[in-house]
Amino acid sequence: MKNQYFLGLDIGGTNIKAGVFEKSGKLAAKWSIRTDTTENGRNILNDIKKSVDERIGNDTEIIGVGAGIPGPVDKSGVVHFCVNLGWNDKNIKNELETLFGVRCAAENDANCAALGEYWMGAGKGAESLVLATIGTGIGGGIILDGKILNGYNASAGEIGHIVINTKETEYCTCGKKGCAEQYASAAAMEKTYERLYGTKISAKEIVERAKNNEPQAEFVFEKGCKALGQVLSSVAGVINPEIFIIGGGLANGGDFVLDTIRGYYRQFAFHTMKETEFKIAQLKNDAGIYGAVKLLID
Amino acid sequence: MKNQYFLGLDIGGTNIKAGVFEKSGKLAAKWSIRTDTTENGRNILNDIKKSVDERIGNDTEIIGVGAGIPGPVDKSGVVHFCVNLGWNDKNIKNELETLFGVRCAAENDANCAALGEYWMGAGKGAESLVLATIGTGIGGGIILDGKILNGYNASAGEIGHIVINTKETEYCTCGKKGCAEQYASAAAMEKTYERLYGTKISAKEIVERAKNNEPQAEFVFEKGCKALGQVLSSVAGVINPEIFIIGGGLANGGDFVLDTIRGYYRQFAFHTMKETEFKIAQLKNDAGIYGAVKLLID
Repeated sequence: MKNQYFLGLDIGGTNIKAGVFEKSGKLAAKWSIRTDTTENGRNILNDIKKSVDERIGNDTEIIGVGAGIPGPVDKSGVVHFCVNLGWNDKNIKNELETLFGVRCAAENDANCAALGEYWMGAGKGAESLVLATIGTGIGGGIILDGKILNGYNASAGEIGHIVINTKETEYCTCGKKGCAEQYASAAAMEKTYERLYGTKISAKEIVERAKNNEPQAEFVFEKGCKALGQVLSSVAGVINPEIFIIGGGLANGGDFVLDTIRGYYRQFAFHTMKETEFKIAQLKNDAGIYGAVKLLID
Repeated sequence: MKNQYFLGLDIGGTNIKAGVFEKSGKLAAKWSIRTDTTENGRNILNDIKKSVDERIGNDTEIIGVGAGIPGPVDKSGVVHFCVNLGWNDKNIKNELETLFGVRCAAENDANCAALGEYWMGAGKGAESLVLATIGTGIGGGIILDGKILNGYNASAGEIGHIVINTKETEYCTCGKKGCAEQYASAAAMEKTYERLYGTKISAKEIVERAKNNEPQAEFVFEKGCKALGQVLSSVAGVINPEIFIIGGGLANGGDFVLDTIRGYYRQFAFHTMKETEFKIAQLKNDAGIYGAVKLLID
């Protein structure tokens, strides 16, 4: 008998991450391929199948495929609109099942990452958690009682687009004004720094300089963390999770970043929830492939 | 054999509402008694038992008691802190079970009201809903897949204390500054009107005058509805519910109120959720006793 494994996919606009997992959650192998977004991403799934066939040996059988997608995925597995991949009204679950001939599942990538952290990362055993991924944008994924909270329009956890400033005059990429992402993402911090001081430095550098008490960087960093603390306190006012997990590039700043965000969170949070735990994400870039596999395992 | 009924209680700081229900959800009888908050509310449960014994006939048997409490209730039925009733660290579920000798349940009153609207009111059959009760304060209750969302500290749905203005200088009753309740509750609208125009009129009157395009009242009403629209868009960014239900005194303004809140909601909501349905609560003051009974019925 062949060895049975699950395949976890994290399909991004630049790269596709793939991981082969034992049912226990042990990652046996992983690799990544480039994403071919030409022709509305029509080659993406075939490219994935080819790379899997090349990678796995004859002694290996894939018994399930889970995929994380950078856009909302509805309950039947349909991606209605995914600008990063060029996909529209595509039933990813069904297409993967046809291609691989096994049980498949598809979910939003931020939700997959949250599920991954719940299964094998910083959120193990938590009753409920929110993963906030701070990178170019702010992604959010919510796990309640071990399950992803999807929302009626598959849009639960869109915490980067919660409006925190109704007086903002500039537009967010989403078409609204004053979204948390405009203040608290790594990209927003870089933009603020450049606008204020005339030089462009990376968010990583801003965090480093803030850690060393460089006043300009400190100002920008604190401003971003304040916005994050505010928006996470709003999230707590709705679902009151057991744990907040901070992921994405900003999480590389470790406890310094965590403590600063939590400080502002406490300022804005309702008194019963000021002690909510904050943790740094553990699975880093692999969270998505872990969560994609967990979609298939009860 | 006696007729079997469930008892639903909504224990408020001024009155206690009681309702006798058939298992089908049909309300057979209801009444209310005054709340005796003297001696840290020690007589409240006995007063309830007495009034039930007086009201129900010999042919009637109470087979379960559910109670809504104006404060957080933990999973084991303990009210740790309820300032309106004077209760501290009291296991209401156990005390009711001792008193009535039947299965009992206790929950936060805003959560009970949401569950009531889900069971027999405006939210029947919804996959998920949020009830926002706009009165002296702003209460919130969340139902997901037919169940109350409690939160890790029994504080999910505290939507009135989501901070929407970090520049506020006045304190909210909760000890923070800039909570939605400071702008959008009926009491807040009355206070704003008085501060701006020097006369105190009721929120009901403000809504009436706004409906008749009286500019002063319109300004205050729109300001309140804008804050509500903003905070509900934040709620949607977290859980993306199927329906928002508006209850409390402000809901008496009907479609005029609903449409104004929804207008601002759409301005702030993420594009996938702009069409979320808004409804006026149906069960009015009885929502709590309905929901309290539903706690006992699967």
